[in-house]
Amino acid sequence: MKALVHVTLKPDVLDPQGKAIQRASASLGHSAVRAVRQGKVFEIELDAADAASARRLVEELCDKLLANPVIEDYRVVSLEG
Amino acid sequence: MKALVHVTLKPDVLDPQGKAIQRASASLGHSAVRAVRQGKVFEIELDAADAASARRLVEELCDKLLANPVIEDYRVVSLEG
Amino acid sequence: MKALVHVTLKPDVLDPQGKAIQRASASLGHSAVRAVRQGKVFEIELDAADAASARRLVEELCDKLLANPVIEDYRVVSLEG
Amino acid sequence: MKALVHVTLKPDVLDPQGKAIQRASASLGHSAVRAVRQGKVFEIELDAADAASARRLVEELCDKLLANPVIEDYRVVSLEG
Repeated sequence: MKALVHVTLKPDVLDPQGKAIQRASASLGHSAVRAVRQGKVFEIELDAADAASARRLVEELCDKLLANPVIEDYRVVSLEG
Repeated sequence: MKALVHVTLKPDVLDPQGKAIQRASASLGHSAVRAVRQGKVFEIELDAADAASARRLVEELCDKLLANPVIEDYRVVSLEG
Repeated sequence: MKALVHVTLKPDVLDPQGKAIQRASASLGHSAVRAVRQGKVFEIELDAADAASARRLVEELCDKLLANPVIEDYRVVSLEG
Repeated sequence: MKALVHVTLKPDVLDPQGKAIQRASASLGHSAVRAVRQGKVFEIELDAADAASARRLVEELCDKLLANPVIEDYRVVSLEG
């Protein structure tokens, strides 16, 4: 099974890296870029008996290894295969 | 309009960070995690007349600011709003 | 002139990525690794009349583009050339 | 003992993230910033009998978990305590 997870800064947490990209895009002549936020995406291949247990495993990974719950949100974007 | 872009290491490029997470998951008792790959996700808010010009703008950003084409692939995951 | 800057999570901010590396090292047989913290390092080449104005410029970059002061600390590690 | 390690892209590998910061700095009015390269810094706390064995352990971590030797260089910046 394959899971796709997004880990992104919470909306109220400043993202200087994203801000730098937005400013840099202006220097390319693209005033049309209003905002950029940068996060992480994880592709996880795992064995699981069914989708429910796969999701539980992925959420445990997120809680313990992938995300800092104080400043980041995670979202299981897809789970398939 | 809002675009979501994934920038990931090409499949043949080693990802030590992902490997570390896979190994760490084994230490949690999850031998079921076979592989982890880590990439970047960008949420981009932009003004564009239509979807086609939005896509062109996003692809130019990827080529010039977000991805290193020698070692990374990018994918416009969604474009909406 | 060349500046080297470290941007690291504040000591009280959880670092799941560092934690994953510490756990992964145990899987290599290295129980001797007690803790790992991951941060960013920036190498900045700049023109400046003297060290004092170089430092001011680097600190402004840190404040505005490189670090999130709520969750991160920065440190100008060296400034030379 | 505490080790500090830099993991940076090899000089011939394009760094779009650093490039974005350099371009963004120009938008702040700082044409004096010529180039920016972004890497990772790791702070590692470990137990070791002496400096030589600490260094061996840190280098093994770098080889196996922290750096991709094809595109990245690592450097043990300090080792103390």
